Amino acid sequence: MAQINPTVGALSKNAEKILRFADKARSMEADLVVFPELVLTGYPPEDLLLKPRFIEDNIEWLNKISPKMSGITAIVGFVDSEEDIYNAAAIIHKGTVVSVYHKMFLPNYGVFDEQRYFQSGRGPLNIVMGDVIVGVGICEDIWYLEGPASVQALAGAHVIVNINASPYHVGKSLLREEMLVTRALDNEVIVAYNNTVGGQDELIFDGQGMIINEEGAVVARGKPFQEDLIVKDLDLSGVIRRRLRDTRRRHEKLERSVASVRELTLHPERVKRKKKGLPRKAVAEPLNRLEEVLRALLLGTRDYVKKNRFRHCIIGLSGGIDSSLVAAVAAEALGSKNLTGVVMPSKYSSPESKADALALAKNLGIKVITVPINKAFESYLGLLKDVFRNRPPDVTEENLQARTRGNIIMALSNKFGWLVLTTGNKSEMSVGYATLYGDMAGGFAVIKDVPKTMVYELASYINIRAGKPVIPERVLVKPPSAELKPGQTDQDTLPPYEMLDPILKAYVEDDKSLDEIVAMGYKNGIVKRVIGMVDRSEYKRRQAPPGIKITPRAFGKDRRMPITNRYESY
Amino acid sequence: MAQINPTVGALSKNAEKILRFADKARSMEADLVVFPELVLTGYPPEDLLLKPRFIEDNIEWLNKISPKMSGITAIVGFVDSEEDIYNAAAIIHKGTVVSVYHKMFLPNYGVFDEQRYFQSGRGPLNIVMGDVIVGVGICEDIWYLEGPASVQALAGAHVIVNINASPYHVGKSLLREEMLVTRALDNEVIVAYNNTVGGQDELIFDGQGMIINEEGAVVARGKPFQEDLIVKDLDLSGVIRRRLRDTRRRHEKLERSVASVRELTLHPERVKRKKKGLPRKAVAEPLNRLEEVLRALLLGTRDYVKKNRFRHCIIGLSGGIDSSLVAAVAAEALGSKNLTGVVMPSKYSSPESKADALALAKNLGIKVITVPINKAFESYLGLLKDVFRNRPPDVTEENLQARTRGNIIMALSNKFGWLVLTTGNKSEMSVGYATLYGDMAGGFAVIKDVPKTMVYELASYINIRAGKPVIPERVLVKPPSAELKPGQTDQDTLPPYEMLDPILKAYVEDDKSLDEIVAMGYKNGIVKRVIGMVDRSEYKRRQAPPGIKITPRAFGKDRRMPITNRYESY
Repeated sequence: MAQINPTVGALSKNAEKILRFADKARSMEADLVVFPELVLTGYPPEDLLLKPRFIEDNIEWLNKISPKMSGITAIVGFVDSEEDIYNAAAIIHKGTVVSVYHKMFLPNYGVFDEQRYFQSGRGPLNIVMGDVIVGVGICEDIWYLEGPASVQALAGAHVIVNINASPYHVGKSLLREEMLVTRALDNEVIVAYNNTVGGQDELIFDGQGMIINEEGAVVARGKPFQEDLIVKDLDLSGVIRRRLRDTRRRHEKLERSVASVRELTLHPERVKRKKKGLPRKAVAEPLNRLEEVLRALLLGTRDYVKKNRFRHCIIGLSGGIDSSLVAAVAAEALGSKNLTGVVMPSKYSSPESKADALALAKNLGIKVITVPINKAFESYLGLLKDVFRNRPPDVTEENLQARTRGNIIMALSNKFGWLVLTTGNKSEMSVGYATLYGDMAGGFAVIKDVPKTMVYELASYINIRAGKPVIPERVLVKPPSAELKPGQTDQDTLPPYEMLDPILKAYVEDDKSLDEIVAMGYKNGIVKRVIGMVDRSEYKRRQAPPGIKITPRAFGKDRRMPITNRYESY
Repeated sequence: MAQINPTVGALSKNAEKILRFADKARSMEADLVVFPELVLTGYPPEDLLLKPRFIEDNIEWLNKISPKMSGITAIVGFVDSEEDIYNAAAIIHKGTVVSVYHKMFLPNYGVFDEQRYFQSGRGPLNIVMGDVIVGVGICEDIWYLEGPASVQALAGAHVIVNINASPYHVGKSLLREEMLVTRALDNEVIVAYNNTVGGQDELIFDGQGMIINEEGAVVARGKPFQEDLIVKDLDLSGVIRRRLRDTRRRHEKLERSVASVRELTLHPERVKRKKKGLPRKAVAEPLNRLEEVLRALLLGTRDYVKKNRFRHCIIGLSGGIDSSLVAAVAAEALGSKNLTGVVMPSKYSSPESKADALALAKNLGIKVITVPINKAFESYLGLLKDVFRNRPPDVTEENLQARTRGNIIMALSNKFGWLVLTTGNKSEMSVGYATLYGDMAGGFAVIKDVPKTMVYELASYINIRAGKPVIPERVLVKPPSAELKPGQTDQDTLPPYEMLDPILKAYVEDDKSLDEIVAMGYKNGIVKRVIGMVDRSEYKRRQAPPGIKITPRAFGKDRRMPITNRYESY
């Protein structure tokens, strides 16, 4: 299973990578090499799929690579076209596309829009490769209890190959494993689940492909968050023994569907094996929760930057926990020399914050540019003096400072071609505790989907992992503050984050109502205020840069709320 | 047909409006009153539909209004729930919901995401009201040649009632009419097509409901872009005569589906009519193209502002054509007293531009605030002097001016609670000829989907319509310029708009490839450059405020392109 990282739209580059991995698999004398879902186009191609030329080009590339893949059977995800278009898997054998499978179940929830583009396939496909029958499936196809995999197994498949572009969220890999184990046990088959890897705008694909045998044991697992070639000789004796005993429960409804399974018989190329089986490979261990999230952020940042052809990034460093975490992530993802921190103190910035920002930059080994904002801020106040006469200072002046910083960092971005990474976390994004065009100004929002309480956990973890305080200790303990007016802390405006975050999870991710959240043990008044803040901030989120999804429901294409919305959820 | 303007989420307010229109129809002694698709929730409710409490609340409101609707039969769009949720029409008779129809065809393309939320209904519904059989359908149901309407007609329906939330684009009404005429003629029925009206974020619903008789004649048409009660006594004799002659072509496939039509017999309430039939109403005339677009912009602006509870708007006036058009639209939509223009001259602003901006404001009768930006701009240059040493001025300094303006206008917005209307047109949005956080800063983008060439047409039309130069004549004839450096015009960077706009339409709206656009008669080099600009500006558009869709494909939820995208469309 080639667990590779394609780039959306980069047909020639993806084709090249497919050939490279196919060559490697062939050199190991594998019989079958499997690539992820839509590997040729990258996933998700979104409205590129509406361009007829894009579809033609992807088929042209499939036909270009096929002849170069003789000597091994390959399953390659691409977009098929016949009247309508299909999320498809090409079966390439002896250098030719000998059959195509069309994905039957098209997800259209969460971040998925597959019914916007594709027609559903009409029936499953089994490939007969000598003594082995391999069922082919794509992603969603395997998530259903009595779905195609069960029918394929009844029709004789020993192995179900399922190719994926399955987006990451915390704990997703375990969810997948539980489902796949059920599928393997129920159908008495080996399940080979291959996943893509890489970052694409808001999404991370975490790899972690796995092979699960008919007894539900994980016999191979791909590396998390990186490319891998998962090589495994499959022991089919268990499956065959059970088939001979025919212990399977009969299932009338499914039996009737068996006739819908197309069977494709391949004539082996009979390349005599020189090697005694495929090399043994260690089963990669799953990561702990914080390491998993950190790796997702690293991959997401690296891929957004590289795939969009940036070489250097810039971050505003406030000396606070959010920008410290983002800087630490970016420095590791891109290398210290490709990151610049900008310290933009105002008259409200504490000396401690400036010191912490500089200490962080020193620890990370990144360059620092210091631009005090006061002169520009004061000149705005001067320009607006007459218009603002008799009006007391309010959030306007706070936003003006944040926006002055936004302008300075964007000027650096424009002048030097650097990508601005923003530093807002999910708790802030939820309640709108951020300045549009101010601290929200930038191209990519690294921790946009990380709740504040997890920001603290990750920052501590980074220090533990490094064995030294990369992020200055004081940053971890001082009360969080935007420092936009004297003595300000986040808790002047917001409930404590230990209370805010579970309320936000309940409302934003779990669609719970006011009553239900109150029943969890929070005060009505607080919950009501939080819900109101979330609802009223939709217009800000609509203009926020994309960021990395790490929870079951992120902002962006995962949560599509109207801005104009008079529903009072309480 | 009650052509009303609900607000997304405003269940109680929508319910109240439904009752008001039902009362009015009853007082006219109508037998049947019909409301638009999802009228109770507003359309589209988007991910509000994932909140179980929202679904419960909408059903609760349906049950609250039903008893108040006795004495008339009503069809009301709402979200039904049984295991899954449905886009549904309640049949309310004698104060009770006597039946529910579930939409069968769920659109999931363009701006539509209905398969994200709803299950498809299983079969059509005919209502027997005395001698008249009325088929019920929802929106997409009627767009298919051999769809539910045909089956309902075969099962005996004389009238097909179709309730809609059909978004506007230029010429859409004519498209609908052609389709409905075909449907009426093919099935020898009367088609009563009711549409919602109003603005919801990016979408405009234009009303223009119509009743088309079995001969394909439009016998009633609702007002464009405003609420209306379309009242009509239907003459069924033509339909009945044809039925008796049974001239219809037989259609085997459809005949087999007739059994799937549920039939609901209502027992009339036999309220004796006092009046001799319903009052006659004029058939509203369709609008000319520019008036139609203008009305869409007026409604979209008014509804976004009002439904989001703003009272006052603010626009940066440059003296150019875009801001002049937006100001003219907003002044008409909101009233002059609810609009303020901000003139923010720099050292590159020509005296003519300032004069034109002030003349426009005077013509419109709106207040003006003048804030010259130079001091703030210069202070930025001072702050950045060291960092920018040895670097020549470039687009950075231009953007910095635009962003200084952005900050000033946002400060006014924050201080006074005014909504900022942005002034970018579709041509600029397409090629990225706009400054993120600069002129793009604001809450609502009135002409975001209007190509520059149409901006000129609309501006001229506004003057013609007013019988006097509301927009100063010079604005219409001077070469367009951002005035961010000396002597700058748009055509330094862009092809002439007469050439740019058709290329953009071909690429953005029609998904044409480089070759196909070149074959339309444009130079390869120019088309390639334009395509490159469009592709590279996706990140800017992602952070743009929402704006009013007036073309078949707008930016926003209508065109979902990846930012990370290495496809070279050439």
